[in-house]
Amino acid sequence: MTQLKAAIIGGGNIADTNHIPALKQQPDRVDVVAVCSRDQAKARALADKHGIAHAFASTNELYQQCAPDVVVICTPNNLHYPQTMEALEHGSHVFCEKPPAINAQQARDMARLAAQKGLVLAYNFQLRQTSEWALLMRCKTSGLLGDIYHIKAHFLRRRGIPGWGYFTNKAMQGGGALMDLGVHVLDLALCALDYPTPDQVLGNAYDFIGKTGGKGLMGSWKPETFEVEDATMAYLSFPGKASIMLSASFALNTQADKDRNLEIFGSKGGVKLFPFSLHTELAGELADVQFPYLEDNDIQLKNTAAFLDACEGKPSNVCTAEEGAILQEIVERIYQSAGR
Amino acid sequence: MTQLKAAIIGGGNIADTNHIPALKQQPDRVDVVAVCSRDQAKARALADKHGIAHAFASTNELYQQCAPDVVVICTPNNLHYPQTMEALEHGSHVFCEKPPAINAQQARDMARLAAQKGLVLAYNFQLRQTSEWALLMRCKTSGLLGDIYHIKAHFLRRRGIPGWGYFTNKAMQGGGALMDLGVHVLDLALCALDYPTPDQVLGNAYDFIGKTGGKGLMGSWKPETFEVEDATMAYLSFPGKASIMLSASFALNTQADKDRNLEIFGSKGGVKLFPFSLHTELAGELADVQFPYLEDNDIQLKNTAAFLDACEGKPSNVCTAEEGAILQEIVERIYQSAGR
Amino acid sequence: MTQLKAAIIGGGNIADTNHIPALKQQPDRVDVVAVCSRDQAKARALADKHGIAHAFASTNELYQQCAPDVVVICTPNNLHYPQTMEALEHGSHVFCEKPPAINAQQARDMARLAAQKGLVLAYNFQLRQTSEWALLMRCKTSGLLGDIYHIKAHFLRRRGIPGWGYFTNKAMQGGGALMDLGVHVLDLALCALDYPTPDQVLGNAYDFIGKTGGKGLMGSWKPETFEVEDATMAYLSFPGKASIMLSASFALNTQADKDRNLEIFGSKGGVKLFPFSLHTELAGELADVQFPYLEDNDIQLKNTAAFLDACEGKPSNVCTAEEGAILQEIVERIYQSAGR
Amino acid sequence: MTQLKAAIIGGGNIADTNHIPALKQQPDRVDVVAVCSRDQAKARALADKHGIAHAFASTNELYQQCAPDVVVICTPNNLHYPQTMEALEHGSHVFCEKPPAINAQQARDMARLAAQKGLVLAYNFQLRQTSEWALLMRCKTSGLLGDIYHIKAHFLRRRGIPGWGYFTNKAMQGGGALMDLGVHVLDLALCALDYPTPDQVLGNAYDFIGKTGGKGLMGSWKPETFEVEDATMAYLSFPGKASIMLSASFALNTQADKDRNLEIFGSKGGVKLFPFSLHTELAGELADVQFPYLEDNDIQLKNTAAFLDACEGKPSNVCTAEEGAILQEIVERIYQSAGR
Amino acid sequence: MTQLKAAIIGGGNIADTNHIPALKQQPDRVDVVAVCSRDQAKARALADKHGIAHAFASTNELYQQCAPDVVVICTPNNLHYPQTMEALEHGSHVFCEKPPAINAQQARDMARLAAQKGLVLAYNFQLRQTSEWALLMRCKTSGLLGDIYHIKAHFLRRRGIPGWGYFTNKAMQGGGALMDLGVHVLDLALCALDYPTPDQVLGNAYDFIGKTGGKGLMGSWKPETFEVEDATMAYLSFPGKASIMLSASFALNTQADKDRNLEIFGSKGGVKLFPFSLHTELAGELADVQFPYLEDNDIQLKNTAAFLDACEGKPSNVCTAEEGAILQEIVERIYQSAGR
Amino acid sequence: MTQLKAAIIGGGNIADTNHIPALKQQPDRVDVVAVCSRDQAKARALADKHGIAHAFASTNELYQQCAPDVVVICTPNNLHYPQTMEALEHGSHVFCEKPPAINAQQARDMARLAAQKGLVLAYNFQLRQTSEWALLMRCKTSGLLGDIYHIKAHFLRRRGIPGWGYFTNKAMQGGGALMDLGVHVLDLALCALDYPTPDQVLGNAYDFIGKTGGKGLMGSWKPETFEVEDATMAYLSFPGKASIMLSASFALNTQADKDRNLEIFGSKGGVKLFPFSLHTELAGELADVQFPYLEDNDIQLKNTAAFLDACEGKPSNVCTAEEGAILQEIVERIYQSAGR
Repeated sequence: MTQLKAAIIGGGNIADTNHIPALKQQPDRVDVVAVCSRDQAKARALADKHGIAHAFASTNELYQQCAPDVVVICTPNNLHYPQTMEALEHGSHVFCEKPPAINAQQARDMARLAAQKGLVLAYNFQLRQTSEWALLMRCKTSGLLGDIYHIKAHFLRRRGIPGWGYFTNKAMQGGGALMDLGVHVLDLALCALDYPTPDQVLGNAYDFIGKTGGKGLMGSWKPETFEVEDATMAYLSFPGKASIMLSASFALNTQADKDRNLEIFGSKGGVKLFPFSLHTELAGELADVQFPYLEDNDIQLKNTAAFLDACEGKPSNVCTAEEGAILQEIVERIYQSAGR
Repeated sequence: MTQLKAAIIGGGNIADTNHIPALKQQPDRVDVVAVCSRDQAKARALADKHGIAHAFASTNELYQQCAPDVVVICTPNNLHYPQTMEALEHGSHVFCEKPPAINAQQARDMARLAAQKGLVLAYNFQLRQTSEWALLMRCKTSGLLGDIYHIKAHFLRRRGIPGWGYFTNKAMQGGGALMDLGVHVLDLALCALDYPTPDQVLGNAYDFIGKTGGKGLMGSWKPETFEVEDATMAYLSFPGKASIMLSASFALNTQADKDRNLEIFGSKGGVKLFPFSLHTELAGELADVQFPYLEDNDIQLKNTAAFLDACEGKPSNVCTAEEGAILQEIVERIYQSAGR
Repeated sequence: MTQLKAAIIGGGNIADTNHIPALKQQPDRVDVVAVCSRDQAKARALADKHGIAHAFASTNELYQQCAPDVVVICTPNNLHYPQTMEALEHGSHVFCEKPPAINAQQARDMARLAAQKGLVLAYNFQLRQTSEWALLMRCKTSGLLGDIYHIKAHFLRRRGIPGWGYFTNKAMQGGGALMDLGVHVLDLALCALDYPTPDQVLGNAYDFIGKTGGKGLMGSWKPETFEVEDATMAYLSFPGKASIMLSASFALNTQADKDRNLEIFGSKGGVKLFPFSLHTELAGELADVQFPYLEDNDIQLKNTAAFLDACEGKPSNVCTAEEGAILQEIVERIYQSAGR
Repeated sequence: MTQLKAAIIGGGNIADTNHIPALKQQPDRVDVVAVCSRDQAKARALADKHGIAHAFASTNELYQQCAPDVVVICTPNNLHYPQTMEALEHGSHVFCEKPPAINAQQARDMARLAAQKGLVLAYNFQLRQTSEWALLMRCKTSGLLGDIYHIKAHFLRRRGIPGWGYFTNKAMQGGGALMDLGVHVLDLALCALDYPTPDQVLGNAYDFIGKTGGKGLMGSWKPETFEVEDATMAYLSFPGKASIMLSASFALNTQADKDRNLEIFGSKGGVKLFPFSLHTELAGELADVQFPYLEDNDIQLKNTAAFLDACEGKPSNVCTAEEGAILQEIVERIYQSAGR
Repeated sequence: MTQLKAAIIGGGNIADTNHIPALKQQPDRVDVVAVCSRDQAKARALADKHGIAHAFASTNELYQQCAPDVVVICTPNNLHYPQTMEALEHGSHVFCEKPPAINAQQARDMARLAAQKGLVLAYNFQLRQTSEWALLMRCKTSGLLGDIYHIKAHFLRRRGIPGWGYFTNKAMQGGGALMDLGVHVLDLALCALDYPTPDQVLGNAYDFIGKTGGKGLMGSWKPETFEVEDATMAYLSFPGKASIMLSASFALNTQADKDRNLEIFGSKGGVKLFPFSLHTELAGELADVQFPYLEDNDIQLKNTAAFLDACEGKPSNVCTAEEGAILQEIVERIYQSAGR
Repeated sequence: MTQLKAAIIGGGNIADTNHIPALKQQPDRVDVVAVCSRDQAKARALADKHGIAHAFASTNELYQQCAPDVVVICTPNNLHYPQTMEALEHGSHVFCEKPPAINAQQARDMARLAAQKGLVLAYNFQLRQTSEWALLMRCKTSGLLGDIYHIKAHFLRRRGIPGWGYFTNKAMQGGGALMDLGVHVLDLALCALDYPTPDQVLGNAYDFIGKTGGKGLMGSWKPETFEVEDATMAYLSFPGKASIMLSASFALNTQADKDRNLEIFGSKGGVKLFPFSLHTELAGELADVQFPYLEDNDIQLKNTAAFLDACEGKPSNVCTAEEGAILQEIVERIYQSAGR
């Protein structure tokens, strides 16, 4: 198999600790040839740290000098759209960080261009690669769950407004807790239902704590520049009656510091994802099933591999451009419903 | 104080084990003079068991012979409306079992007539009398919670479709899990928000398990005559942005046999109701507060007393006719949204 | 259906608290007409307590005056044989307490006579009626266990040498911990394997603690008249290679006061009986299955009903005369191997 | 004291991580001078890694060039016999990995030659050096246990058929779960009884799971080349009536992934080894004793030291050649009883 | 044996539920002939309830008409002295509720008169009859503890100021938490040391919560009439250096509602009393010993029996008049040290 | 701000692992210029390890060559006094290890000289810098505790007599468990009360285990040279009635290996320090408050910073010379009371 030539756009933490290591562990499939960051010194340092040949301060240079087969985009949310469009125009497959974009139109355009160009565009929702999710999908496929009709999904932090980065800046992020955290569990919930589009969406967004301030568990944030929502609650109803209850928060007066889970209810069985338990009937009795030996996966490694599978035309469970567009549209409809 | 003369309408279990004992424990306030049931023998037996003088087979006789100050209605849901209207017409205060009625129009009419007549009409939502709810309301009043903006409320049974009574008969009950179970926690959630009317309601109702059958934990039900919903999920959005997520089930593939709870999120503190825990900041730190010595209340005794308080013109936290009408309308809007 | 006429032989505790109440709860199937005990006053008192017409001091009188369809034998082990033979000769079905007899020859003769007479002879191993055992058999039948090839069975008491009755008297009981306790779990283990006869038996029996004395948890026993074994360990190997490890003790220096369990290992799944857990593969993963809603059965009521089923020619899972003979022979071979 | 000259035969993992480090930590007692492996490069690499002077590809060279005082044999089971005999012939003390050999005759010959030559031959059963075992032996010696009469010993894996090495190859290993795992706990059980020879042995061996395949927790094995037993159950009866129940498995449908334990029952006290608890009478009451401060031992270091003690003529609790021969004979009798 | 004739003085709850039932269970030893209470009707009702012949309103009548061998005094603390003196003068043995009296001089006088008269005077410290205390004394006697040199004793309630009776009235009770609760654990601590007299006593007493008011867990008390201490802390130092730390509270801001325990430290072993655990060395290791099968004693029955033993001249572990005097003196010295 | 020049006196473990790293993490405030130890080689090695310029064998040289602004004293207790006096005389601020000295007079003299010279003298009681203590002080300041009136403080080891150093040498250490361990919790208890001087002190000291020997959990000590107390118990009573119960042990027959805690009782709330829980009333109910997100502090770093704050004239919660003198006097009074 031919090795793909990959370039990284964005020189931050997620490139350094997630994407580059994951690519580097698959040297027979991919060769990381360049890092690109507006801050040339940062790009250089990162390239040197990982033994990557080139470091660029502009994507122009990158495309001219390297012609990468694959581009991995690890920049703030508002750059996903322009950088993805540019990469596709240059004929590169794109592996873009989540969320897809900061509004639905962007995500739709990105999907359209990728389809036009016959290129892979995928989004990095790594929770799909957890052992728990793999098992959920096997349970679904094997009929253990019957028809799935309701899902409760939440990703809650008690006081986890990040004290660094752009997480509270609306223009750069497009939103708060839903855009950063909720999308992870929403993506899984949609997968469980085969990625339908809801016919009704209702939601609310709040910022009481974010705008008031207080004790922080992920650094200290500034209430006076807090522009996004600290909590979003939403309900999605789908044709055929399936429904999703979705909760996401950066800050909420709840017990656990971090609480991320899905409950998936089907006509034959129900699953709580973390830790995985299946509730069903077996031998004529109500049964609770535990799976005590699920492995811990390196979920970034697996998701990067899934993206590369897609590039190589193999079956893959990576989040596609089309799925990303559906998800982004739902996010937008929730924010609209919430009056934001 | 003058003792009130009370009559019981309905000769079933709830009269026998809840209402009559609760009234009998307050002999200085109320005197139970009659039991009325279509089945005369049943009425007689119940009256004898509790040392009650009269037993009637028709409400006509009851009103002619006894002229009760107070009527307690413990009949199937579809009788709440006609029996309440009749009682009010005869000048009796009414303590009616929940839910108020089988549709919103009935509940509104009942409230209107009570107001016209200057009589008390109240509904028996006893969870309001738990120590936990009393403490929640004290926390709210004292400012420990700040502004309450989101509530998650659920009343879930895993396989608790009753194998007796009329619980699966739509004409008599008006609905299933929401009508029988969900209303309890919905009433509490509305109380926490001062009983507003939602501007938006979205919901879904299911009957996969009810119509399929299987192992039952509250007797065996007949899937072929199962007419109501076995699970209802809903989302309510209120003016001023507060929201409620509501889940109710007779049957759902979840872990616990019975799971009934509310989480109430405010800007300063959040509460999980059972067991009661408060999550807030204290002395500049995130604090979890337990109240280990809450008493077990006799909630029926307390709710009956609250009703009598209302009859005597005293302050009372019993569910009023107006609140009942709001609640019944929300139930109806949920069912409409769910296409039932 | 014709009601059967039943008589009780033996006026002790097991008649009073187990057999008579179980029979009395099935009045449409059986009528208890007599109690027979060597001690006439005891018989009379027991009959009066339970509203039974006749009380006899000799079985002669019983058969002459009552001609029972069914006889329930609740006497010390050494009387099981003569009283069963007499009952069968008089044409009565027999429900005999466990163990069947005090040696294998007796049990074989009892089975032979019952077969000759075309009468039901059954033994009261009630653990067969636990919800756990019923579920085990359903798991086995449904193929969840595959081929069962090894069983660990134990019934251990730490210091449970009874301080009353004849439990330490070898002539009357025929043995100690194995005869009194071990037979219960041995019977279940044999059921799981379809009641085969082992080709090899190896065992040891001990009496260190019983002959030394010390703290007792079921009253105080007399070491100087302790004649039976306080612990028996055995291994059974069956044609086709299945095997059973069996442990029974009245007294053993182990942690739990009482510990009674079976582990059943099959090619596809294994079960620990109390509390019931199933260990298998599901959806390609190792799975542990719990069944949290197993009912508590009234196992004596169910076993008496199973015996009556057999008398009425219906399918029944009560321990048959043939199974009893196989079990008694195994007990005898264990004691022989142990040199007792 | 003179430093002993030691050589390692076998270049695998056990040499690298267990034996060489243990020897290297006792430099005043022993000097590791050579590593010998059929694969010269492997021997060289291992020697270099640990700073050992010589690396040989044949034992011939080893003995000619180094004349080691001590030889440590870390090769597959089938080589234990020829390599031990050769080492003894060359006048070296031998520390051989467990099990002693692949049949009883080999182990007896090895013991005989060591005795003839006046050399130490010992086997590496390191569990003897756990704090728990040391405490068990102190309890036994101090009389806290009285007469030990029954032992339950097991070493069970749920799905632990190794996916590497020769563990499923009968010719090289001599057997499966019993040969690899069961011998560890059998050795301890025999120690507790002062290493007697049983007068009766009964056992069964199974390979249902091994030959069928499925999920593995120690890599994936090939069912089609699975030649050994995946589970062995056995019962040993000794002169004077003591008995051992022994269970060993590579694969069994049981709950825990790994479960290794002994229960030792004596007339005065009983012990469960892991975690260590003693069950006895104290001050006239039944007492459970925990020892919360047992140290974690470096058991390989201690066992190597015990072997060196033996070489130096000091008291030692290392497994002797004679004990190894008794154990190997028991293993053989179990396999014979099981028809393998 | 001659049956003793007993009379009860005091018609309250402790007579009704503790002393009379305990006496009535030993009919071969004692015959309860009279109840005496200032309130004649109360005396009569109590006598009738328990089938006791006589009911008196004055002790004069009692002694004139009944001449009891034994008198049991169950009246408020301030009556213990006069009623005991009177009973002794009339030649009756006395079993007096704790505490002995309301000051040391009274207790000394009571002991002196009993000795003069050759009569038994004993105090009802029933905790001496718990299984835990019996085992502690056996451990002490058997040498398992070595020399006992320090004891921590506490009897703490979080909000247990009784809302009934005279518990907050200083004139009638003589004190608060120490007088009512502390004496129980102080008596045990003194027993463990063979009832020495301390050479130094230091203590403090508090009434912050009692005088402020708040939530009560044993009814509601009145802060404005709260005269006793709500908490007493003290330290006792004995000749030979043993020491006791003593804490008693009716109200204290501590976690548990009720917390009553002793820790007894000896040179060889230490004991925590509830639940009983022994901490020592065994077989050369630090050992924690649990005794899981201690029986629940009917401690009042046992203590009454112990008093009767004393009356019959048998060995008894009931609290003697001399011990009571020592204890009362210590209480007085603590209060003096605390400036009360 | 000018950087302070610091010197370390004492070349042991506490200098190496606590003080030097803490100073080195604040390079903008302090520059460590010298290490001084009687053992020149040790001083040199330590200096080299941490990149410190000078290493001296005598304090003379130190003061002549370096003129440090700050001296940190990490030597055995008996050297604290002479070295502190010398340092003050040379004009250096002093940060001295705890305890202040080996008797009260020394501590008073040290405080007096520091005051005279206008220099900072502080003692290293680092527990003041735990998050728990900081929160306690915030709770006290905010009024959540009301008046603090009783404190139980203990620092107990079960078998923690150090097997190294001078801990059992009375001349060098001045005492045992109280001097080494008890002072930590005594300092905190005094802080909670604003560092008062007690008007009464009563205490006892023991050495049963220390002088007998046995199993050690911190190495093995020599009973024959054990000169200090292994346990000290004491009671302090303060003007205004507050009291402290204090327990400290190197060896005691208690359950936990190490157990260090304070309970602080106030009129409005009580606190258990580790883990921090607050017991109070909230919303009219008894409430238990947990603070689940307290950070782990680097307490040495914080305490060193607090000392530097003091040197720079900033507010600081480091233990002052005056507090140290009060504490040392209490220790002396306890030992006197205990006859040591």
